[in-house]
Amino acid sequence: MTIGDEVAALKRERTLAAATELFYEKGYTNTTLDDVAERLGVTKPFIYKNFGSKHMLLAEICASGVQAAQAEIDAAIALGKGPGETLSVFVPRYVEAIITTRKAIAINIREEKNLLPADAVTLARLRHKFVASVEDVLRRGRDNGEIEVTDPRISAFAIVGAVSWLTFWYNPEGPLAATEVAERMSAVVLNLLETVQPDTLQIDA
Amino acid sequence: MTIGDEVAALKRERTLAAATELFYEKGYTNTTLDDVAERLGVTKPFIYKNFGSKHMLLAEICASGVQAAQAEIDAAIALGKGPGETLSVFVPRYVEAIITTRKAIAINIREEKNLLPADAVTLARLRHKFVASVEDVLRRGRDNGEIEVTDPRISAFAIVGAVSWLTFWYNPEGPLAATEVAERMSAVVLNLLETVQPDTLQIDA
Repeated sequence: MTIGDEVAALKRERTLAAATELFYEKGYTNTTLDDVAERLGVTKPFIYKNFGSKHMLLAEICASGVQAAQAEIDAAIALGKGPGETLSVFVPRYVEAIITTRKAIAINIREEKNLLPADAVTLARLRHKFVASVEDVLRRGRDNGEIEVTDPRISAFAIVGAVSWLTFWYNPEGPLAATEVAERMSAVVLNLLETVQPDTLQIDA
Repeated sequence: MTIGDEVAALKRERTLAAATELFYEKGYTNTTLDDVAERLGVTKPFIYKNFGSKHMLLAEICASGVQAAQAEIDAAIALGKGPGETLSVFVPRYVEAIITTRKAIAINIREEKNLLPADAVTLARLRHKFVASVEDVLRRGRDNGEIEVTDPRISAFAIVGAVSWLTFWYNPEGPLAATEVAERMSAVVLNLLETVQPDTLQIDA
């Protein structure tokens, strides 16, 4: 990466962050690209050059939550451990990813009608792929006896829901820090799966 | 109830149903009271007489999901059973209530910025009261040893999230009927709580 590339990446990142704040606070329709440019101290042509249009900016923001979640499950799977351990690694990281991207997720839900149809289809595919990834780990865990789960699909939706709902109640000014919420929510969610401990397996065998 | 009262109640119910469909499909801002009146075959003054304003109609729709959920936990508590049984009764009914009111819940989330500030405060109180009711049952279950739960508050949020997320994925045209989804999701959610069975308690004692 050249310095020029790094600067471009930094500018994109800052633009996304500023637009996320504005869309979250004022709504997509009430926010102009001039508002975003003003908050960043850049020009509107800069934003057009980097994102093409307000619609493309929205599509990118809406995708960021599910992309962060997918990155966490991919990373956990890439460790090459069994399904039980994969989940134990994934869930706390997933909770933190949702806390970090919660404003983008809220925008995704609120502004779905403002997405271009093609962007809405792409997003639905990303969400579907993510739930399928979680479901697949659960299914493998059920098949090799590591995870006690009757319905991997509904369980995957339950996990995604329990964690994603943080978007609507997590308060960074509340009594619990993000890492504490991540720890406690992970304990609750992993409890849902009744991961069978290896030594329990030995006793049963 | 006189026939007049019954007719008025029916008309209110139909108005809410028509407005829910329109706000869900077109969004609150893009829906006029004329659209609602047209779909119902009534006059706009009829709607004003029954709901006062478009804002009041929105507030009532937004409250309907959490009110249905509160009614189910209140009904389950009113049976006067222990916390474990209270939850077993509540969860499947709660899932069905969320499936029934899912469009109103989606409207609540999407249109929060269009609520009058006083209505937003009222709704936040209703949501808070509902989560506190679930938390209270979990806490009592933990205290009397019927439910194994470490953090009743985070667990209450996990249950509410797992179930409420149905709003975004449940498809009435999908392969699973509402009662089947309710049954499977209830099994997953109740599993989360590791309800201690009475006979297990006896063995331990």
